[in-house]
Amino acid sequence: MDGHNLAGQRENNAVAQVIISFLKYEEYALKEVYSLRVKKWESISERQKGMIPNYTEYLANLKTSIQENAKFFKSVAEYAMQSIKIEPEEIVRPSDMDMSKTCSLLTQVYREWSAEAISERCCSHSRLIQFLRTVEPSKTDILIPGCGTGRLLVDLSQLGYNCEGNEYSYHMLLVSQYFLNAGLTQNQAIIYPFIHCFSHWKGNEDQLTPIKIPDIEADSLKKGMGSMSICAGSFVDCYGRNQGTKISSHYTFSKRMQMSRAKAENSKDVVITQFFIDTGPNILDYLDTIVHVLKPGGIWCNFGPLLYHFESDHGVETTYEVNPYSGFQDKINDSTPLMGLELSSDAIISIATNRLNFKLIQRESGILSGYGRYTGPESCAMPGYMCHFWVLKWTPSGEL
Amino acid sequence: MDGHNLAGQRENNAVAQVIISFLKYEEYALKEVYSLRVKKWESISERQKGMIPNYTEYLANLKTSIQENAKFFKSVAEYAMQSIKIEPEEIVRPSDMDMSKTCSLLTQVYREWSAEAISERCCSHSRLIQFLRTVEPSKTDILIPGCGTGRLLVDLSQLGYNCEGNEYSYHMLLVSQYFLNAGLTQNQAIIYPFIHCFSHWKGNEDQLTPIKIPDIEADSLKKGMGSMSICAGSFVDCYGRNQGTKISSHYTFSKRMQMSRAKAENSKDVVITQFFIDTGPNILDYLDTIVHVLKPGGIWCNFGPLLYHFESDHGVETTYEVNPYSGFQDKINDSTPLMGLELSSDAIISIATNRLNFKLIQRESGILSGYGRYTGPESCAMPGYMCHFWVLKWTPSGEL
Repeated sequence: MDGHNLAGQRENNAVAQVIISFLKYEEYALKEVYSLRVKKWESISERQKGMIPNYTEYLANLKTSIQENAKFFKSVAEYAMQSIKIEPEEIVRPSDMDMSKTCSLLTQVYREWSAEAISERCCSHSRLIQFLRTVEPSKTDILIPGCGTGRLLVDLSQLGYNCEGNEYSYHMLLVSQYFLNAGLTQNQAIIYPFIHCFSHWKGNEDQLTPIKIPDIEADSLKKGMGSMSICAGSFVDCYGRNQGTKISSHYTFSKRMQMSRAKAENSKDVVITQFFIDTGPNILDYLDTIVHVLKPGGIWCNFGPLLYHFESDHGVETTYEVNPYSGFQDKINDSTPLMGLELSSDAIISIATNRLNFKLIQRESGILSGYGRYTGPESCAMPGYMCHFWVLKWTPSGEL
Repeated sequence: MDGHNLAGQRENNAVAQVIISFLKYEEYALKEVYSLRVKKWESISERQKGMIPNYTEYLANLKTSIQENAKFFKSVAEYAMQSIKIEPEEIVRPSDMDMSKTCSLLTQVYREWSAEAISERCCSHSRLIQFLRTVEPSKTDILIPGCGTGRLLVDLSQLGYNCEGNEYSYHMLLVSQYFLNAGLTQNQAIIYPFIHCFSHWKGNEDQLTPIKIPDIEADSLKKGMGSMSICAGSFVDCYGRNQGTKISSHYTFSKRMQMSRAKAENSKDVVITQFFIDTGPNILDYLDTIVHVLKPGGIWCNFGPLLYHFESDHGVETTYEVNPYSGFQDKINDSTPLMGLELSSDAIISIATNRLNFKLIQRESGILSGYGRYTGPESCAMPGYMCHFWVLKWTPSGEL
């Protein structure tokens, strides 16, 4: 088996592990979410049980909702299995992290593919589209790193833009493949996206709200005027600089990725980072990568909070520089903290304009946006995040 | 050493452990917060270092801020040490949880004792006080379970109400003792309450904002018209029913607590739960306890979110019933989940009115309240919680 096949096999195993986590959702959620609550209920005194007579009915509804979600995950898994031959002996059992990511996909699907979350999506889309109106769609190549389950890709390709998504998570990738290609009809499926959150509810029925998905006809994607594709992998690995970037868990030195990166240079008119820029352990690698893929005069639009994902992660990774000709490793740091470099928005804008030849076109701070928020009457769900929006133009030769 | 002294000794050890966690704050924060970020900075390439030339200055300011916070914790510890003789050989080393609680005290102190957080406090105080205006202060005994570092106690006793606080956390208790009794002058001390959060900042200087505390003259407490005291321990253990409550980590069967609970019965005119009702593993025990302490016609005011603290806690505890005469243990459940019984606000109100003889006086949902939120211009800090407010009157004989 050569290096490329080996990588392909590893990839297949990773995909298989996610597929298994979809198939095991029901077993996991019944055990970790439902059964523990039944046990708690059983443990209280008869007198206290009499105080909440409707609780058993609530628990029964919770169980049914889990089973309904399991149907959704099963159909995503079945669609995915058509594209990969799972070899059971090589399958790693899904970790708790895999299962937790599977559960949180429900929020992501709600956010991206329900009518109820339109106002949430509009919060960023309206700002992005207001800017995009100033450019000619058919001549505009857009890159969307962290494209999630693909909704923004669809919406922009429908407007005629040529869109390329990039996503690191196989959980997201398998779901996006399902929504983009499985030919779903409008409101074909039902999920219960809120059942994994037990706090903040005004009424039990709010938590148990069924949501129809998708809100748009999946088939309409095929009629999209712009092109659409998704590249799997880390943003920095797929699109970053070939020189001057330290090797890390998100950046490798394989021939295949070197070629991918060389091809990406100066290739995009617009990079849109939406709920993405805060996701990596080194935001400077993200900034370098954005510069690397933009054409001169290209645009970087950002919308989202600065909720640095590694802020509290006490893990470390090995980073080092490498000589592209000899492969010699230099400046090895085998315990680089994952936390750190949590830049403020002022700092990011300052680096972009003072060090990376960007010109600030537009900026807005403190935009409250829900994130998978239940929107029923008198909702007490967590309000969401205070988001930052900016538009920066890359002007390497001082042009405007 | 008899049982009471043994309990006293255990209590002293617990207090000592918290005091040590205050004294070790600087060492802990420099190691876990500051040094890891220095290490990350050192690990990036020279080229990337050149992109953020001000970062070393930022790190130096972060270090200074930690050292300033350490001065605050040192003075709280020194004041506390006057009240307890620490015997070093019995001191348990503070856990990571102890240290994490110490760091989060900065948020609590900011919330309760700074002028900057007035609008945050007013969000609940204004509603409570509007109701309290309808009763005669000198004839009103108020109980505030989960009184934190004591600010609401002070504010209400200044208005003439007789206030008793109750708090389970020694971290909180030592800080409340300091603010209530150490004779601090207005703006005497400075803390940097935001430095343990690295996300969401518009500018670095926002994170490094110094805050003067306290905003009120600590000595004015002595002139309070109402009485003021704080009882240490679990709400259910100190004030709960003596019969029909299952023994748990929050409810014991000692003679001392039985006497405390007997004394508490029908003793209060008002119970105020503020950011508290969601903190225990069995909210029904809280409801029982509120009923137990209220006089007929008494009032329960609640303000806060329903952010159930044990929602994601996979731990278990042992619970059982006990015969008060024989001490015989019955209905033992040695693996009661901590999670569970996360009631919606509708469910709580329904239990109160349909099962516990409360009458609903006032109710409001979806009140956005900051929680230790930085309030500077264009703040992008997390918005806070959607809070519930209700006033319920206990009418056991149908009286209004």
